[in-house]
Amino acid sequence: MAIPPYTDIIKNLPAMVPFVGPETIERNQGKAFLARIGANESVFGISPLARTAMADAACESWMYCDPEGYDLRLALAKANGVEIENVMLGAGIDDILGVIVRTFMNPGDTVVASYGSYPTFAYHVHGFGGVLKTVPYRNDANDLQALADAASEHGAKILFLANPDNPTGSYYPREDIEDLIARLPDGCLFIFDEAYLDFVPEGSVVPMVCDDPRIVRVRTFSKAHGMAGARVGYAITHPEIVQTFNRIRLHFGVNRMAQEGALASLGDKKFIEDVIRKVNEGRLEYESLGRELGIPTLPSRTNFVSFDLSTKERAVGVMTSLIEQGVFVRMPGVPPLDRLVRITIGTERDRALFAEALRGALSSGPD
Amino acid sequence: MAIPPYTDIIKNLPAMVPFVGPETIERNQGKAFLARIGANESVFGISPLARTAMADAACESWMYCDPEGYDLRLALAKANGVEIENVMLGAGIDDILGVIVRTFMNPGDTVVASYGSYPTFAYHVHGFGGVLKTVPYRNDANDLQALADAASEHGAKILFLANPDNPTGSYYPREDIEDLIARLPDGCLFIFDEAYLDFVPEGSVVPMVCDDPRIVRVRTFSKAHGMAGARVGYAITHPEIVQTFNRIRLHFGVNRMAQEGALASLGDKKFIEDVIRKVNEGRLEYESLGRELGIPTLPSRTNFVSFDLSTKERAVGVMTSLIEQGVFVRMPGVPPLDRLVRITIGTERDRALFAEALRGALSSGPD
Repeated sequence: MAIPPYTDIIKNLPAMVPFVGPETIERNQGKAFLARIGANESVFGISPLARTAMADAACESWMYCDPEGYDLRLALAKANGVEIENVMLGAGIDDILGVIVRTFMNPGDTVVASYGSYPTFAYHVHGFGGVLKTVPYRNDANDLQALADAASEHGAKILFLANPDNPTGSYYPREDIEDLIARLPDGCLFIFDEAYLDFVPEGSVVPMVCDDPRIVRVRTFSKAHGMAGARVGYAITHPEIVQTFNRIRLHFGVNRMAQEGALASLGDKKFIEDVIRKVNEGRLEYESLGRELGIPTLPSRTNFVSFDLSTKERAVGVMTSLIEQGVFVRMPGVPPLDRLVRITIGTERDRALFAEALRGALSSGPD
Repeated sequence: MAIPPYTDIIKNLPAMVPFVGPETIERNQGKAFLARIGANESVFGISPLARTAMADAACESWMYCDPEGYDLRLALAKANGVEIENVMLGAGIDDILGVIVRTFMNPGDTVVASYGSYPTFAYHVHGFGGVLKTVPYRNDANDLQALADAASEHGAKILFLANPDNPTGSYYPREDIEDLIARLPDGCLFIFDEAYLDFVPEGSVVPMVCDDPRIVRVRTFSKAHGMAGARVGYAITHPEIVQTFNRIRLHFGVNRMAQEGALASLGDKKFIEDVIRKVNEGRLEYESLGRELGIPTLPSRTNFVSFDLSTKERAVGVMTSLIEQGVFVRMPGVPPLDRLVRITIGTERDRALFAEALRGALSSGPD
């Protein structure tokens, strides 16, 4: 007997393994990593308040979670100076990106993003049968002018931008983003991915303009809040768009513990400030390590630093060596970024392990 | 400024609020329910082992969850006598149904299910632009012959069946299901929803036949395992179909606590046996309450019992009265099932509250 026919979109999807977690590498290698600084997780952990809230919620998890996510959405609305009707929850930004793509991109439609930017956006675009046109990074940053031009040229239905950016760590302040928005072509939705927002200077952020129905901002508890494994992201946008999302999204996708944990973490400002301080410390340390070893580091407004190994060969060599030495790191897969190795800010111990492993990698590898 | 154009599918989707949780009703009423027996949650809670595992996992939730869900899938494979390659995880059956529909149903394609069966299947069919043809329930059970006939007649791409069924509680043993499978038309995928499997007699279940690539079985930790709020479901099917699902599914959708909790719960056989015993006790009590009050109850192989109020008017009246009295229950929305009120097996206290409220509803309402 045969498998029933797949849809046209599925038939044309390339086979791939898009998400290889460190656990998979550990299973393949038969040993655990000594330092886990490859996925931009927050090694500084989760707020004690969130931990308690999640443990309490575990006991109540016989009950379905609130499909409206009311309490968390209300708290997020207050924290962001918007109304609850402006906020949608999702199981991480990954979930939300899928919902947005489904809502605004017909199969065959074109969307635009930087070449080598957040892979899950591309994953959903392909998965829903769209065409992704990309714009190369320029000076290791998103090329805002070229992105706007490409969106116009291709009649893009969606323009995706992460700011701060992953994997470069680069960041545009308010004026540049507002300029980009002003040049959005008609009928183009702007996905503004602010996953790393917690690490940017206050005052540089684009103000909330929820009456502009062309913008969906997406944010997450995976970074400064240290809740990557809990899966909580949120979108802030026009209320009518939130209502439309409600007609297709997975209503129970953010589980009970995740909702309660995020709510508690949102209230623990001191913890988050402390994480940001530690991230800033660690970033300085990485930068000074780079200077010491003669490896330029890219300016970063995130919880990671990209080290510039000048060539793909050298970057692959260093990454491979780091992984073999028990230090989980990642690198971008496409030029011109594939000369970078991206290192999450680790704990003091992680950073010491990384520094030692990096020295080892450099001394053993080709120069 | 205008909202950028929605996709064709979204434009044609009716506005609706598909998932109204008890929390929403509580917020609207301004008071909490005394008994929560409307969503077929397991009031007997979650395994203590799972609770501990989840609390421990909360501390580690700064790490992304394993996108492969390896440990849990391996345990599920062992428990079900299949290989890990046969198992896919999802954030509840709801998540998995969306993935299946996306994989096998083009927009415009027809699928078949019973009229009034699990609403999330219909939700995804509409959300992905399909056409749902329905078959009426017959004698308060799925009409297997008519379902197979409808699938043939309409060239259905998917046939959906829940067994045990929700909302009737009816159940077909192995022979009947095998007969249905034998009559599946060419090119039709069979979604076999076994959410309530834990409550059926051993020996009556269809054996695992993972080399038949026309069948996807879906199961959940939301019922006997008492983990509805954690969001863990799984599919068992042909390995090639699992690989195809991997090309579109949300890889991080089952969070770290959910994976660890489900793994622990799977190992706590004594707890599950105890839940099943309590559910059986409660069901007998509901049946005897029905006899006492002259309200027939439908035979059930689940953790709920549907009370037959003979007319829609009477059922709506009773449900409304129960809710007003603080007892959260639900009823099916379409004929001929809309004479039923569906009551989850509650704790002893829940059942006492329900019995009292039901007497109150019957004495105050029209006969």
